Amino acid sequence: MSKLLTTTPRQDGFRMPAEWEPHIGCWMLWPERSDNWRGGAKPAQHAFAAVAAAIVEGEPVTVCVSPGQYVIAREMLDPAVRVVEMTNNDSWIRDCGPTFVVNKAGLVRGVDWKFNAWGGLLGGLYFPWDQDDLVGEKVIEMEGDDRYGPNFILEGGSIDVDGECSLLVTEQCLLNANRNPTKTREQIEQELRDYLGVEAVLWLKAGVYLDETDGHIDNFCRFIAPGEVVLTWTDDRRDPQYDISAEAYERLQTMRDARGRPLTVHKLHQPNPALITAEEAAGVDRVPGTLPREPGDRLAASYVNFYIANDRLIMPAFNDSHDEAAQAVLSDLFPLRDIITVPGREILLGGGNIHCITQQEPLGARGAKTVVAA
Amino acid sequence: MSKLLTTTPRQDGFRMPAEWEPHIGCWMLWPERSDNWRGGAKPAQHAFAAVAAAIVEGEPVTVCVSPGQYVIAREMLDPAVRVVEMTNNDSWIRDCGPTFVVNKAGLVRGVDWKFNAWGGLLGGLYFPWDQDDLVGEKVIEMEGDDRYGPNFILEGGSIDVDGECSLLVTEQCLLNANRNPTKTREQIEQELRDYLGVEAVLWLKAGVYLDETDGHIDNFCRFIAPGEVVLTWTDDRRDPQYDISAEAYERLQTMRDARGRPLTVHKLHQPNPALITAEEAAGVDRVPGTLPREPGDRLAASYVNFYIANDRLIMPAFNDSHDEAAQAVLSDLFPLRDIITVPGREILLGGGNIHCITQQEPLGARGAKTVVAA
Repeated sequence: MSKLLTTTPRQDGFRMPAEWEPHIGCWMLWPERSDNWRGGAKPAQHAFAAVAAAIVEGEPVTVCVSPGQYVIAREMLDPAVRVVEMTNNDSWIRDCGPTFVVNKAGLVRGVDWKFNAWGGLLGGLYFPWDQDDLVGEKVIEMEGDDRYGPNFILEGGSIDVDGECSLLVTEQCLLNANRNPTKTREQIEQELRDYLGVEAVLWLKAGVYLDETDGHIDNFCRFIAPGEVVLTWTDDRRDPQYDISAEAYERLQTMRDARGRPLTVHKLHQPNPALITAEEAAGVDRVPGTLPREPGDRLAASYVNFYIANDRLIMPAFNDSHDEAAQAVLSDLFPLRDIITVPGREILLGGGNIHCITQQEPLGARGAKTVVAA
Repeated sequence: MSKLLTTTPRQDGFRMPAEWEPHIGCWMLWPERSDNWRGGAKPAQHAFAAVAAAIVEGEPVTVCVSPGQYVIAREMLDPAVRVVEMTNNDSWIRDCGPTFVVNKAGLVRGVDWKFNAWGGLLGGLYFPWDQDDLVGEKVIEMEGDDRYGPNFILEGGSIDVDGECSLLVTEQCLLNANRNPTKTREQIEQELRDYLGVEAVLWLKAGVYLDETDGHIDNFCRFIAPGEVVLTWTDDRRDPQYDISAEAYERLQTMRDARGRPLTVHKLHQPNPALITAEEAAGVDRVPGTLPREPGDRLAASYVNFYIANDRLIMPAFNDSHDEAAQAVLSDLFPLRDIITVPGREILLGGGNIHCITQQEPLGARGAKTVVAA
């Protein structure tokens, strides 16, 4: 049974764990809308299936699928993946899904934020988003966890925590007038403290160049351990990304986290600028109200958009000259995990990458799902 | 992960437990189709919600709901009930859902029968039934159990087991040409032995008068313990039900179960004949291809259509002069359980009753769902 709570995680002693803390599993949604994904979403579906297959070798994966796609997804997905029915507007469970929090006893609860498709009627990417907004509640309900329901618009990709009371966000997203326009910066910080159980809110200015999420932190800069972050980077001063990353680098140098630590910043060189091809654009249905995909548009490609699974890290590869170096950097930063690369181009074409399409559920004190031998 | 098996439960040492063996929970579906349920299914939804509320006091209940009804069902159902999304054609999970089987080690698996809406194109009750046919698979998948997928049409309401290798069925249903017409009686018996892990198949001739399921056993005669059955009955010799019940009573006297025991037969007097009122019939949308509900049609009312939960038994009441006696009989037959009555008229109007809208999942060796204290 899932109970709607009127308290806050902070009041109840709950916090959002870091992504590298143990998971009971990973949640995904199945892509299908032909006005965002080219070729009737078939290339994206294969890409999502590859991500699910890579993760499920290390932890259980549940893929949520709309009714009409259920049997198709069941056929295309690895048999080890669990498939459940869940209506949605698109497939970004990092952003429309729940944020799980835990307490010291290992009890797990879900935070069910409000979702408005990255901007609602002021620059949101599609309309409507009512089914996406139910995804958080439905996942929490399926797990039987108690639920917090803040009256606050937030996407999971716009926050990144170290599990020790520090949180990274961008002003471009969190202070955007299309999210929570009636709240001041201080009020927004308080919401984050209340519902994520953090103390220090560390503000960067903006995210990756042309990121249609309004600069989500998870494509740009993320904790890889307490006191250490990885930042997407370019050495090309003519690239618009240079100034954004350089400015963030400067800010990060001056910051102290919730424990008073300075931050070590690891640079992760971005892929070469990736543009939508004419063929790719032609494969996407044009629909009024949905962000169009134009030939030549630059994609917000970044290696920072990885998923940290229990025993491995799933990183997007772009068939790019920087792929190998990125894998090497992440291998150094995550010595306990295998770094698995999965082709990320088809996910990128839809507006995000591997981290955006995944949502970890912490293990807490539940113990692993039990399997009884025959 | 849920694996499709090509063996049979019998080969693998699995059997269907009796309904009185411990459950991990109960599954239901949410009624909504206005061509079967009067008043836009609102009265039925309240009746289903009352059944769920009665069961959930004794064991976990999951109600599966189509996408458009999700938020409505979540509001109407007891907060202790879990709600998950699942597309369906109608709400009879006893018949379209899985049959769970267990082995001696307590491992649980699901049998995913084929479903054709009680007769397919030869007298089936609606068209199509494709989503109902996926319900078994989806429930088993959600539970992560391995799955048997026999090429055999069967509804859960057409079988009743004692958990000790005996099975009750009716010829009217199992031998009906609209179910598995290419199979002989012997082949059908073998399917039942193979997939339910039983030995003795005990055949009654027919079920309740005018039962639109073609005489499902679960509305007519059920085991209440090994060697003991309860049979719907009437003392009115002019009632068409009399000959059916009397004939069954005779057959039951001559039978021996799988252990060689004779059967003790307990009579459960039926409610007074219940006819659809003009007002009730007028509230049902008429749609070609769906069985119409005509004023004056007799309903297949029976107290045998109860659900045996872990610590209680949920029995339909009809505001009828026989209600009290029925409750007293069941109370004698199930001394360890509270006998809870729930109004059954609105469920009956749709063509079944409490047993038809529930499906138990055995506990096996899983242990109860763990709840961690805060």
